[in-house]
Amino acid sequence: MDSTLNVAIVGATGAVGEEFRNILGHRQFPIGKIKMLASERSAGKSVQFNGKPHTVELLTEDSFKGVDLALFSASGSISKQYAPIASDAGATVVDNSSAFRMTDGIPLVVPEVNPEAVAGITLGHGGIIANPNCSTIIMLVPVTPLHRVVSVRRMVVSTYQAASGAGAAAMAELRQQTEQILAGLPPTCDKFPQQYAFNLFCHNSPIDDRGYNTEEMKMVRETHKIWSDSSVRITAICVRVPVMRAHAESINLEFNQPMGRVQALQILRDAPGVSVVDDWKNNRFPTPLDASEKDDILVGRIRDDISRNGEDVSGLDLFVCGDQLRKGAALNAVQIAELLL
Amino acid sequence: MDSTLNVAIVGATGAVGEEFRNILGHRQFPIGKIKMLASERSAGKSVQFNGKPHTVELLTEDSFKGVDLALFSASGSISKQYAPIASDAGATVVDNSSAFRMTDGIPLVVPEVNPEAVAGITLGHGGIIANPNCSTIIMLVPVTPLHRVVSVRRMVVSTYQAASGAGAAAMAELRQQTEQILAGLPPTCDKFPQQYAFNLFCHNSPIDDRGYNTEEMKMVRETHKIWSDSSVRITAICVRVPVMRAHAESINLEFNQPMGRVQALQILRDAPGVSVVDDWKNNRFPTPLDASEKDDILVGRIRDDISRNGEDVSGLDLFVCGDQLRKGAALNAVQIAELLL
Repeated sequence: MDSTLNVAIVGATGAVGEEFRNILGHRQFPIGKIKMLASERSAGKSVQFNGKPHTVELLTEDSFKGVDLALFSASGSISKQYAPIASDAGATVVDNSSAFRMTDGIPLVVPEVNPEAVAGITLGHGGIIANPNCSTIIMLVPVTPLHRVVSVRRMVVSTYQAASGAGAAAMAELRQQTEQILAGLPPTCDKFPQQYAFNLFCHNSPIDDRGYNTEEMKMVRETHKIWSDSSVRITAICVRVPVMRAHAESINLEFNQPMGRVQALQILRDAPGVSVVDDWKNNRFPTPLDASEKDDILVGRIRDDISRNGEDVSGLDLFVCGDQLRKGAALNAVQIAELLL
Repeated sequence: MDSTLNVAIVGATGAVGEEFRNILGHRQFPIGKIKMLASERSAGKSVQFNGKPHTVELLTEDSFKGVDLALFSASGSISKQYAPIASDAGATVVDNSSAFRMTDGIPLVVPEVNPEAVAGITLGHGGIIANPNCSTIIMLVPVTPLHRVVSVRRMVVSTYQAASGAGAAAMAELRQQTEQILAGLPPTCDKFPQQYAFNLFCHNSPIDDRGYNTEEMKMVRETHKIWSDSSVRITAICVRVPVMRAHAESINLEFNQPMGRVQALQILRDAPGVSVVDDWKNNRFPTPLDASEKDDILVGRIRDDISRNGEDVSGLDLFVCGDQLRKGAALNAVQIAELLL
């Protein structure tokens, strides 16, 4: 292999695509050539990378010749169609869609959690690796180091999810609706069926026959796969709030063995990819704004769950925030690629 | 007693004061004279009631002569000072502050939940009744009817709280900050120490030595008092989101005996003060916007908790929204007064 790698970004003009360009530009990834790919709608546009304009090329079956790493963040159907083609052409694919996450034999990876899952994959020799759902990543970066010390038995999660999770168009719609409402005009609802500005609503993915939406079940199933442990019990409710680009999550944990605040604090302070923000005196805890454009997941409200006092089960509360576009998407994918260097 | 009652509103110009005026105007409450009271800052202003202007009078120790019902929604310190004076003067006080909520002998009342607690109190003969915290009311209206059928053992609650809970100034600050950010200006942070627009943060009340803030412990302690049962286990995390006037809450319930979705739906459809919004097919569930300016608490995402499958404990998830100014404050207080008619 050459000392530099040829990289392609599929979906280069989207919100995550933009973040791929930012992150690759700032990290020491040994890029040779870089190729910006998108659908017909965006092909021909110019995007910036490392301060220089790059023309976006049309994604075709021939796009991946000579590409070592292909970072996909388009739709699930684009990934389903083109990721195998890219892999066959010798590109190693890190896919941000949900297309392959639950496919047997495809690693689903959070580098801080299960780096061993990429064993046997080499950049430039094909293969597909799936990037987990943003809410799953943001939860598992702080929860896993605790789980490694004392097994988590059950998790109850409520999310506060940002607009960016639904893409650049959703962010633009939140902004436009907010302007309209402040001007006394009716809000335009294109991307979501209901008003988003100054409102919130349960995640708009389909509801299954048990009443869970797809986003919630991603948190359950992806955690089971990433931890290689289907015994951990999880219930989640996923809610979109009018915030731009970082998710928050309220996480209630149950452990079979004792796990208290003091031990949790110690573990989290040493955990990779985690910053503790837990100032009780000044009432400063993680916020989406503080997490925005940061690599780390912020964690606070670390406390013993008083509803577990005197019980066999040990309980711990956490409140976490993480940049949905960065660690929730583009950064995690680039870190996966870095594992393969 | 006369067939009409003389009413005083203490804090008549605030966000809850405005709602008192709206609600009293629309309901069949038999009002004789009405008196608008406030501090020096607001005395002399004119406020509307039933389409007519009323001059706001300065609150003094002599304000309550001939008053049968005094609705307080000022600060806790105003209530502490003036509620006993009003009661001594013969006015029955319904107090929306936290001043007396946990005081022994003072009833803490949600009319749908514990109307029996007002027994022995007659309008125009003194007495103080406390109105619970908004988040507590919004939780207990839908949860209590379930609890009456099968005892709730434990609750894990995450709130999504609106600006109105911190008063009219907080609502104005959220609006102003939003305008500033859309204009590319730095946001003015007066009411809260951090940016509220397009952000969220944990409730800014003081944190106790176990890591719980005052708002969260209100939900715990007030529930114990209202239910006359300190055995129910509760953990709550209270979060302010950039929404104007209705709170949302994600509630995970544990029951000692079986309680499933089918039974819960039946109970909630018949419950007073509750509207079920739970359309799985069309993904329509409660939102703060739909709950705004409504009397009922909206409840949805009613589902069996999959993390409890095959366990002895029965689990149920709910997502509820309620108007913080209405059922969370002014409406509940007026309904308490109506219990006394």
